[in-house]
Amino acid sequence: MIICMGKDVKASAIIVAAGRGTRMGGIDKLFIKVADLPIIAHTVLKFECCSRINETIIVIRQGQEPVYTELLNKLNLKKHCKLTIGGQARQDSVWNGLNAASGKIVAIHDGARPCVPVDLIEKVIDAAIEYGAAVAAKKMIDTVKESDDDVHISRNMDRSKLWTVQTPQCFNRDVISKAIQTAKSKNLELTDDTAACELIGQPVRLVEYKEPNPKLTISSDLPYIEFLLKKQS
Amino acid sequence: MIICMGKDVKASAIIVAAGRGTRMGGIDKLFIKVADLPIIAHTVLKFECCSRINETIIVIRQGQEPVYTELLNKLNLKKHCKLTIGGQARQDSVWNGLNAASGKIVAIHDGARPCVPVDLIEKVIDAAIEYGAAVAAKKMIDTVKESDDDVHISRNMDRSKLWTVQTPQCFNRDVISKAIQTAKSKNLELTDDTAACELIGQPVRLVEYKEPNPKLTISSDLPYIEFLLKKQS
Repeated sequence: MIICMGKDVKASAIIVAAGRGTRMGGIDKLFIKVADLPIIAHTVLKFECCSRINETIIVIRQGQEPVYTELLNKLNLKKHCKLTIGGQARQDSVWNGLNAASGKIVAIHDGARPCVPVDLIEKVIDAAIEYGAAVAAKKMIDTVKESDDDVHISRNMDRSKLWTVQTPQCFNRDVISKAIQTAKSKNLELTDDTAACELIGQPVRLVEYKEPNPKLTISSDLPYIEFLLKKQS
Repeated sequence: MIICMGKDVKASAIIVAAGRGTRMGGIDKLFIKVADLPIIAHTVLKFECCSRINETIIVIRQGQEPVYTELLNKLNLKKHCKLTIGGQARQDSVWNGLNAASGKIVAIHDGARPCVPVDLIEKVIDAAIEYGAAVAAKKMIDTVKESDDDVHISRNMDRSKLWTVQTPQCFNRDVISKAIQTAKSKNLELTDDTAACELIGQPVRLVEYKEPNPKLTISSDLPYIEFLLKKQS
């Protein structure tokens, strides 16, 4: 499926911020202040600075409207920014974000990836405009093993074909809507939006990049993220 | 194979520093100065500080003896440190290192991983003393995809069983010698020492850790490595 709409097409950012951060002991990791701002503010500002984006949807947890409203007032964004409530699983949250978005193209991004380079957002959006679906990706550098018991190596993996994928993951909105609807109709709960594309036979383009784009998952990720954000500011 | 020798067993460090750094444009990445010292000096000092280690073998490229001799004189190490010349492939270099080592246990480590925590070295050595073979490893956190054409996603991988392995990789010396000899006799050239253990049916223990232990592979890895080394010093 080739979708050519030219590079003046505007896109909606869908920032997924409804997770519970269970790996960080229940604290709200997105509101940890780093380099003068909460993590989530850095993320939102990256999309605010991206010329391809004309609105931002933040998918949040029920009850968090007041803290987000206060934050957005402080940030004084020029682009339209909406809050919407997430669901039980990531897929439900993305679905709710899609329903709130008006763009023909959507850029889905983890709220906990605040260091994403603005030009990477642009590149992934441009690939989605051209090909329908695209994702920020890195070639696997580390040696990869499979373990059946979490204690010993069971098998060596050939890493030459392996990639890790991060966000942004960008799509023609009709494509990702159809893909997630198909997953829902099959009672599949997918943690990754590109996996849904496979269900409808939509090829997903890998957009390779080399810059760091870490996700805040555990506390020991914080110093590096702080270092990167300070370097960017 | 269970090998119990107690925790007073001493080990030889084999630091592999004979690579050509082709991904960094031919410059000698190990002599880039970061946090006051060349990368390789930071690596050597980590093993110098590890109580389990009683000698260090550095496997270097032919012709680099003078620069290494000068460096070692400056570092003024208390433990015995030998230089040996590497081979064409990593496996040949490790083999030469093994032949120069006197310990019953060997800790093989990439020269380009200068941030390795000293207590991780100890943990992997202790696991090798107990189980014969062990490797520093991290559970896969990123989403992993396979691509047949380096352009599109071909398959989604189940990451729940996937680990990345780094160094140190620690072994009973007889075990790794037999494993590499077996690989050589089969004309296999393995880039990873634990893969050779599979050939002789030696189970390899995963030693999970969470601290960063990056390898200097491309120039954009440098700022993070510098950040970590400054934090450690």
